[in-house]
Formats: sequence, C-alpha cells, structure tokens
Amino acid sequence: MAQLHLLSPRGFRAGAAAAGIKSSGKTDVAILLCDRPASAAAVFTSNKVFAAPVKIGRENVASGKLRGIVVNSGNANACTGRQGERDAMEMCRLAARVAGCSPKEILPGSTGIIGHELPMAKLRSGIAAAGKNLGNSPKHSLAFSDAILTTDLVRKTAAVRFKIAGEFVMIAGVCKGSGMIGPRLVAGAGKHATMLAYLTTDAKISAALLRKLLFAASDESFNAVTVDDHTSTNDTAAILASGLGPEIKTSGAIARFSDALQSVCRSLALQIAADGEGATKVIEILVAGAASESDARAMARAIANSPLVKCAMHGNDPNWGRIVSAAGMCGAKFDPDRSTLKLQGKPVFHRGRPAKFNPASVSKSLKQKNVRVELTCGLGKSRAMVWTCDLSREYVTINADYHT
Amino acid sequence: MAQLHLLSPRGFRAGAAAAGIKSSGKTDVAILLCDRPASAAAVFTSNKVFAAPVKIGRENVASGKLRGIVVNSGNANACTGRQGERDAMEMCRLAARVAGCSPKEILPGSTGIIGHELPMAKLRSGIAAAGKNLGNSPKHSLAFSDAILTTDLVRKTAAVRFKIAGEFVMIAGVCKGSGMIGPRLVAGAGKHATMLAYLTTDAKISAALLRKLLFAASDESFNAVTVDDHTSTNDTAAILASGLGPEIKTSGAIARFSDALQSVCRSLALQIAADGEGATKVIEILVAGAASESDARAMARAIANSPLVKCAMHGNDPNWGRIVSAAGMCGAKFDPDRSTLKLQGKPVFHRGRPAKFNPASVSKSLKQKNVRVELTCGLGKSRAMVWTCDLSREYVTINADYHT
Repeated sequence: MAQLHLLSPRGFRAGAAAAGIKSSGKTDVAILLCDRPASAAAVFTSNKVFAAPVKIGRENVASGKLRGIVVNSGNANACTGRQGERDAMEMCRLAARVAGCSPKEILPGSTGIIGHELPMAKLRSGIAAAGKNLGNSPKHSLAFSDAILTTDLVRKTAAVRFKIAGEFVMIAGVCKGSGMIGPRLVAGAGKHATMLAYLTTDAKISAALLRKLLFAASDESFNAVTVDDHTSTNDTAAILASGLGPEIKTSGAIARFSDALQSVCRSLALQIAADGEGATKVIEILVAGAASESDARAMARAIANSPLVKCAMHGNDPNWGRIVSAAGMCGAKFDPDRSTLKLQGKPVFHRGRPAKFNPASVSKSLKQKNVRVELTCGLGKSRAMVWTCDLSREYVTINADYHT
Repeated sequence: MAQLHLLSPRGFRAGAAAAGIKSSGKTDVAILLCDRPASAAAVFTSNKVFAAPVKIGRENVASGKLRGIVVNSGNANACTGRQGERDAMEMCRLAARVAGCSPKEILPGSTGIIGHELPMAKLRSGIAAAGKNLGNSPKHSLAFSDAILTTDLVRKTAAVRFKIAGEFVMIAGVCKGSGMIGPRLVAGAGKHATMLAYLTTDAKISAALLRKLLFAASDESFNAVTVDDHTSTNDTAAILASGLGPEIKTSGAIARFSDALQSVCRSLALQIAADGEGATKVIEILVAGAASESDARAMARAIANSPLVKCAMHGNDPNWGRIVSAAGMCGAKFDPDRSTLKLQGKPVFHRGRPAKFNPASVSKSLKQKNVRVELTCGLGKSRAMVWTCDLSREYVTINADYHT
C-alpha cells in the first residue's frame, strides 16, 4: 500500500506557490479544496488577541460547510485592524474564485510575524498560482504541508485508514508549529500557540458530530503539547469531510472514527513537540493518581512549562526536585508524601523522600530522544498527559534573533 | 552618615562560617541574633512541596517572638522526610545554644539542591564557628549576606532610616535569589521561588502588626518578581524587630513604617531580578487600566513569564506582538482595540493596530540595563507592576549544567 497523505481521502486537491512573503523564497501560499461541499469543523485560539483570519474563519465555519482552506505563512495578519479583516476576506474571495464557490465557504489561515499588513499584491498572484497547481498526488500534499511552515525544521504529516462496514475511510492531516506553542484550542473561541493543523477525511459525517469529535481529539493532542506555553493569536485546527466514503453514524463507527482522528491529531502534536524551537528531545509527562483531571493537567503543564525542568532535561540531569516542586506550585492538590516520580521508568522520588538511584545511569538514560516523566500522586484516579521539549541555547538564539 | 546595613538597627549581631557544604569553600552557614526577644513575622512559600526548615519555621514564628535566624546555603533540606525535620530542629538547637534561648525562638532557613540530607557534622561545627564570629559591624552584615548566596553573582542588601517622634528607626534587609524565582509568599502557607530575605528593624512593634505589614510589602515586592516563575520549596521572607527604637502605634507611624518596609523589600526584589540567572537586564512591566487587580497581575505575569518576550528583550527586539498576545492569553479581560503598549516610553501598538515607530531606534533604546514595558488596557483603573529579566543562553547553560 502506498503511503497515505493529506490528499489520500477522496475528494480533495491542493496547490501551493511562492508568493514572495517569505524572504527565503520558499513556498508561502497554499490552498486545499474539496470537490464538493464538505462537512467542516474547526477549533481556534482562545487568545483574546486573535488574528483576522481567526475572526473570519470562525464566521465561515459556523455553517458547518466549507469548500476549502487558503493559508499563507510568513505573516500572521494579526493586530492589523479592519484592514486585516478585509485582507483575510479577500484571501477567501481569491480562493473561492479558484474553487467556484462562495467566499463564505473558505477558511482562511495565516502564520508568521504579528502586526504587519499582508502584502496583498503578492497574495493575489500567489493564490492564483497555487490554484493553477492543483492536484491530489503525494507531491501536492507535500507542497501544501511545506507551504505552511515557518521556523519548523521538518514537515509534519499523519494519516490513517480503517474500515467501516467493509469500506475504507481515511483521515489525514498536516500541521505546522515550532515556537509560540502551547495551544488551547476551543470551540468558537479557542485555547494557545501558532499551530495550524488541517485535516481531511472522506467519511460521510455531520458537521455537528465532526465538531464534537474534533474538540475531543484536540484536547488530548494539540492542547496537550507545549513548547513555550505561549498561546498564539492564530492557532487553528480544522477538518473537512468530503462525504465520499462510508457514513459515520452507528456508535461503533463513531468510536472508530474518533479513535482514528485522535491518533492523527496526537501524531501531529507529537511532531510539533519534537520540532519545538531548539529542541533536542521530546518529553512526555504523565501525571496519574490525581484528585481531578484539571489537577492532573495543571501539574503536567506546570512540569512541562518549568524552564528549570526543561533545562535539566536538556542537560540530561535527573534533577527531580525541580519536577516535584513544579507539581507542588501549581495550585493542584498534591502531597509529596503520597507521590512517586519516575524518570525513564526509574523511581527517583518516593513518598516524600529521594529514592535510591544511580545518577550517572539515569542521566545516561535521559540522553535518549524520548524522555518519560511519570508522576503518580496517590490522591485519586485522574490522569493527564502533556508533551513538551527541552529548553536549549538554540531556543534563545532563534527567539532573540527573530527580528521585528 | 555611614552606610546603613543589616546590623544598623539596634540590638542585632550576626556571624558566618564556611562549613564545607558548598564545594567552592565559600561561607555557607550564618546566624543572625537579636539581643532580646524580638517581635517577628515571616511569609513562606505556597508550594505544597515545602522544605523542612519552612515547616519548622512556620511553627516557630507562630508565637510572634524570635531570638534569631540560622541559615545554610548549598543544600535546601527539601524532600528529605522526617530526617530533614530533625535536622532543621537541630539547626535551631545549635543556634539557640549560641543565643542562650529556646530552639523554638530560632527560625531555620536553607537554600540549595533539593533532595539531599543536610551534612549535619559540617553544620554542627559551622554553626559553632559562626557563633564565635558574632558582631554588628558592616563586615558582619556582609558576611551574613554572602553566606546565604547560591547562584547569585552579587550580594543584595537594602536599608532605610527615618524618624518617628524625633527618633530614628531603621529597617534593613538582605536577600538571596537568582534562579527558581517566582515567589508567591503567603501567610502561614506561602507562594513561589528560592528566595530568602531577612530583615531587621529596631522599631517597637507588635508581631501582629509586623505580620500584616510584611504581607502587604511582600505582595508588592517579592511576589512581584519572577525569573523563571518557578516557586521554590524554600522561599522565606522574615523580619525581626528588636523594639529598642521608637514605637510604631499611631496611624502616621504605621504608614511611614509600612512605606519604609515596602521600599526595602522592593529594593531587594529588584536586585533579585537584576541578578536573575543569565540576566543582562531588568524588565519592569506595568499593566494599567485593567478591569481588576487580579487581571492586571495576571497580564503582567504572563508577559514577564513568556520565554518569547524574554528572548525578544534579550535580543533588543521590539517584537510587541509577543507582549500583546501574552496579555491576551492569560484569561484576564483584555481588548486589543482599547489597549496601548509602550516600550521605553515609545508607543508601538495602539488600539488594535501597530503604532508607527522606528524599529532601529526602539531596538537601540532596549539595549539599556532597565527596560520598561507599559500596557494600558482601557478597561478600568486597576494596575500591577512586575519585574523580571531577559532569557539568555547563559540561563540555559547555568540550569542545564547545575548537576544533581
């Protein structure tokens, strides 16, 4: 079986172009179209400072029907006032012209620097050029996924295929995100990071159900990844369902679709953590035995966002005091005397006291690309998982030198 | 007038020694004693993982009377279980023997690595040696302030003198703190960072009033400074009043004492921000016009703790989008269309839109040692001030290489 990609689900085409927004000359405009009106759902940043494409996108996706997505990188079209909204709407009009649909059926997206008006002359020719490149080959998928990247070092894609009533359904997605990552995507008015994720499926599914499943999947994936805990003005995750495949209606079909969607979103989220600015490793933080789910999440996020913990992980240092104190400082119920902390499966702290371990050997085990931090609290049954990356000198270099 | 110092207020003596806890051989044990029972108040970390000296300290200060303080650096005596509590109590006994008082009249303090038992043999001889060095000269003050330092590059001291009813009152203090700084000191069970601050005064003042004024002063000083927003297991600020000076009883005297105490605490807090690990500058963040004080604080802290903002400041980059989006992501009421942001007094964002400014000239102005970020929200009358420092490669180096 050939490798699945964004355009494997039936009914989609994509195109990309270099409009000259990025000074590097790389592709920076892309469109993704569905051949027919697609069921659609999206979640957006919860930041009260949200970009123009988020505002227009919320309005356009409200109907539950979209024909496509238009997106640019290199400029966030955020903090650009009324002109920014007009520009986001023009992006929709330009893509709608290609699709032969209403501008209201297009979801706009932007990522890049905040506070600069879009160079619309470049976007006009760029979107037209992308429209002339449309196709559904793996190459077209890659072109779309590459055009949305900013400080990302690698493209991020995921896809799954499974059967409903003997017929294949596919869910695929691409995303971008490396810095300003700490998404808190919510319905209507979303959670934090510039993370953009676009998903396709050929399932036949109602917009209402698609929305519900996307929210649930986002919470366990995009909303569980943090690089710098900085919610962006532009975070968006959207899914379009062409309806050309089997229908998702029975509870069994819904469960399988939901699991598959979650696995795609989780794969994309993990790829963001792995490609976090300056990252050398992914840190998976599991908090279990918490008194409530919100407590578990608060502790996992406090650990994930502590610069001290992230630096220790960068230095392969089993400095567990920083981890335990991060759990204790976030307001969640926590009792060190009932807690155990494991690094890479090795207990380092147990019921209020240091566990006996060999620092050199644990340090060596932390040198892997994937690090697991596991805190059990002994207070209840709630758990949460969060992914982050280490904090390196390179992160500082990238963000001190990314000039306005 | 000679320079005021920790032991300028009448009735205090201090001594320090190198007990060999720090591998550098620098002084690491100190005691501060009052010649008579002092009114005393203290605020401690709010971290649910609190060190043994915090536990014992809370018990001992509850009476409102102390004779002294014993403190070590190089080891936090945190996550050390029952043995840690016994060791903290023994530190009190050893200091009490020097002072000729009950161990309950001593406040213990520790700072350094988490999860290691105190080397009590070293502490026994160290505290005895410090007890033989007691004095109240400027040299003794410096010896005390230096012995509590860890990753600090500079000592931190402040003192003021003012008159009540024609007689001088003095308030002085020293503190330590450079990393794991984000104190949230509270009464009884406190807020975040390893920050230790010890203050002396010769005012005659009740413990209850002293406590109230210390809480208020801490909120506008120690609790408003953050380096890495990591609440420590050991944060403590304590004040001892010898009662050898004029009485603080009238409302006028209380107001003046309160102002003076706040100015000493604020000076110490600012010195912590300036000496933050890897810091090259202090960033003062003023949020005004917020709908509530808690909103103003939340926004100021979100800006202060954003790694993206801190890196931009390190790179002298007027990347105001990161600042505005930090304000928008923290949950506080915020409307970009009513807000204005100034960097070094220069408007860079105004009512939802970029302000016209010369990036090169603002960037040049950010190269100063003191940077002012001023966000006015247009929503109400509440304001908050927070101090932080920039995030540098050096911060990563310090914290990736501070090995367990």
